[in-house]
Amino acid sequence: MASAPPTRRLSSGERAPSREHSLVPVGMATILPEAARHVRQLESELLAYFYRYGYDEIILPTFEYFDVLSPGLEPALLENSYKIVDRTTGRILLLRPDVTAQIARTVAMGMLGTRLPLRLSYRATVFRYEPEHVGRDRELFQVGAELIGADDLSADCEIIMLMIESLRQIGLPSFKISLGHVGFFKGLLVGAGLSAEGQKLAEQAAARKDFPWLGEILVRERVGKRSAQTILDALELCGKAEVLSKGRALARGEQPLVQALDRLTQVYELLCSMGFQDVVLLDLGEFRGFDYYDGIVFDVFTDGIGIELGGGGRYDHLIGRFGRDIPSTGFALNVDRLFRGLNLVDTPRTTTSVVLVVGPVTMTKELVSVTRQLRQAGVRVIQRAVTASGQDLVGAAADAGLDAEIPTTVVMGAGQPNREHVVVLSRRQMDEGRAGRSPLHKKTMSMSDLIASLRTGRKGVS
Amino acid sequence: MASAPPTRRLSSGERAPSREHSLVPVGMATILPEAARHVRQLESELLAYFYRYGYDEIILPTFEYFDVLSPGLEPALLENSYKIVDRTTGRILLLRPDVTAQIARTVAMGMLGTRLPLRLSYRATVFRYEPEHVGRDRELFQVGAELIGADDLSADCEIIMLMIESLRQIGLPSFKISLGHVGFFKGLLVGAGLSAEGQKLAEQAAARKDFPWLGEILVRERVGKRSAQTILDALELCGKAEVLSKGRALARGEQPLVQALDRLTQVYELLCSMGFQDVVLLDLGEFRGFDYYDGIVFDVFTDGIGIELGGGGRYDHLIGRFGRDIPSTGFALNVDRLFRGLNLVDTPRTTTSVVLVVGPVTMTKELVSVTRQLRQAGVRVIQRAVTASGQDLVGAAADAGLDAEIPTTVVMGAGQPNREHVVVLSRRQMDEGRAGRSPLHKKTMSMSDLIASLRTGRKGVS
Repeated sequence: MASAPPTRRLSSGERAPSREHSLVPVGMATILPEAARHVRQLESELLAYFYRYGYDEIILPTFEYFDVLSPGLEPALLENSYKIVDRTTGRILLLRPDVTAQIARTVAMGMLGTRLPLRLSYRATVFRYEPEHVGRDRELFQVGAELIGADDLSADCEIIMLMIESLRQIGLPSFKISLGHVGFFKGLLVGAGLSAEGQKLAEQAAARKDFPWLGEILVRERVGKRSAQTILDALELCGKAEVLSKGRALARGEQPLVQALDRLTQVYELLCSMGFQDVVLLDLGEFRGFDYYDGIVFDVFTDGIGIELGGGGRYDHLIGRFGRDIPSTGFALNVDRLFRGLNLVDTPRTTTSVVLVVGPVTMTKELVSVTRQLRQAGVRVIQRAVTASGQDLVGAAADAGLDAEIPTTVVMGAGQPNREHVVVLSRRQMDEGRAGRSPLHKKTMSMSDLIASLRTGRKGVS
Repeated sequence: MASAPPTRRLSSGERAPSREHSLVPVGMATILPEAARHVRQLESELLAYFYRYGYDEIILPTFEYFDVLSPGLEPALLENSYKIVDRTTGRILLLRPDVTAQIARTVAMGMLGTRLPLRLSYRATVFRYEPEHVGRDRELFQVGAELIGADDLSADCEIIMLMIESLRQIGLPSFKISLGHVGFFKGLLVGAGLSAEGQKLAEQAAARKDFPWLGEILVRERVGKRSAQTILDALELCGKAEVLSKGRALARGEQPLVQALDRLTQVYELLCSMGFQDVVLLDLGEFRGFDYYDGIVFDVFTDGIGIELGGGGRYDHLIGRFGRDIPSTGFALNVDRLFRGLNLVDTPRTTTSVVLVVGPVTMTKELVSVTRQLRQAGVRVIQRAVTASGQDLVGAAADAGLDAEIPTTVVMGAGQPNREHVVVLSRRQMDEGRAGRSPLHKKTMSMSDLIASLRTGRKGVS
């Protein structure tokens, strides 16, 4: 797998200086409030968009029985999964390393009824051992969609368009879809007479675009020079429509290859006719990391992130591994990588009206009452009881307001004319007061005036 | 722990007939779309409400190092946790069994800076082995809030009011808060000279209101008859304000007990003055399941659910187990039990305008184009390419619409005057057509008229 460039990540805390003394498991980091808000917003915007396409969210268990899920997953992924012996049953539990296989298992069991097609979406964490602990690579946040029980052209296009349009919806600035069909490259390998093991290795080499390794595999498998050259040439076929004609030349009329190219051509043309010609790039060597894909496949990339943000494809025989075949397609997006692609860390904080209300501990009841009135008016309110009183109270409140970096501080019990009045300090006044440039200006307001000004101002009282 | 009554649950699939042949791990069930939508809405409404109180969401890792987190958790909970030997480091990883301890560890490490107080919220799954696999008891969805670095009366009230008001916000019909102070009962046990082990057992018996067991423990610990009676009497002190004076009588002026009662009185009076006297019940034997609570504690109950929906309390010394003491309080709600308390299963589905668009596979491009126009107009659209054409197309479309239980079906390519026109079938017309009561009425509309009618109708075209 390609390793990620050193862009800013959403997670923090995994940079413990030494693994021996790490207090937080590597590759599984904490997402602090600023980033967490963006992550949750990203997730819910994507799921809401999927909903408009008819996709309903499903929540799946974190664990699966190893013996039940393993038919859906390739050996390498099973090896890299977290396993626990279930104390109750003695069976091996797997922390899910992949959601698509889990959904396939769920559908095959009939838990979602028999009505097809099904449109399902999810937000889930998957768990994998990764050799390099860069970022949250062991605990991955994914958002995805699956279209189950539809094998026509419109289904392939629906799922790809859904991915493209949802990425536009969240504002991903520039991205490319790499589109292929696993049947083409697989067909070439089969035609060249590779062993099953050799084919698997060649597919892995192709997925990494590792030409020297692929070359070695072909030599080891005693593939003829001409066939080997065809395979290596195919891996370079990336680009626009001309790739399809070049692919047809390499296919030499072989039916499985021609059929793959036909479907790819139809999908590509339909996507172009919808105006996506600048987004979609053909790649005849396109492989996703999972062996259950058996038709159209795609990945999404963006500038500055050296690894795919997500991808998906058609898996017509995965559900069959758990029961009967149901042709399906879907995709998943990696939330961590999307977050980096969006550069969300640098966007300004959502501007919600927020007020700090300070009162003496001796007036806790009045303090709670004031904060409640403000909250009922829709204001975000942080309350603070302080031990200061009398002359010191306003100063203590100003210090608290400045420390909390909150634009407006409201002070209770600071000698206001009556209980319905409060002292209001703006950030500017508090800054000037602390700098000694001017005495702290105390503005007295009634609660109703304060609420009215917060409602109109929406960002604080100036 | 009390076991739950057989009310309807959000999860499905855990009812496999026999454990031997179960395909899904027991106690960790799938949440199907209808319920999943409610769960996500519940979570986001609660988190949004916490935000208005100044609480920011944090996302924490699913795993923790056992040696790091264990000081924060009592032995019984550690025993009931899922553990994995980390392949990379050889250290033991724990699937988090509790979020509060995890937040305490995170705060103590300084990952959230040094500014106090901190207001944090979370939605998270916790994992525990449970002897009885009823529902999702091994994989629990929790939503919670923590107020870290505030020990005054207003902090205790803030966290309790936040819980009460957020439960009202989501529409929980009737619930009671059971409010206590662990210092009172603990003080009685210490005063009676119980051993550390005996005290721990007595607290467990008190938490379960198990009078016979508590009596046995007191006999075994050779507690004098009068002291034993005081302890058993204290456990029965549940109710309104009179409980406080009865408690004072039992306290006989002992300082730790009096201090606990003083704080409890202040909190109770403040909550009553805010109008919560009907919601809050005092319980001098109130204990939560976690030994880190050391002050005010509370649980929330509702009719028909025989176990608490959530609860919390003050933990002034938990963060100190990971570093320095920071007085704090917080609570967690169990989403599964809230869901049951709300009886959400029976509420009607959210009424979003939803349309099925059917076209022949030969017109996939036009089909995709029409669905796209509708989606851009904000309509939830499900698209379906069918092999039928000509006369059969409308019938096939009506069948698809009825099967999918969608109010409006739009048919493309059914001989409409031009490409800008579609055939629109309403649910009623399709029902009548299928029943043979009337020939299928075909209404032809332009796309712009269809979009306009969906926008005004919002529930489908009648």
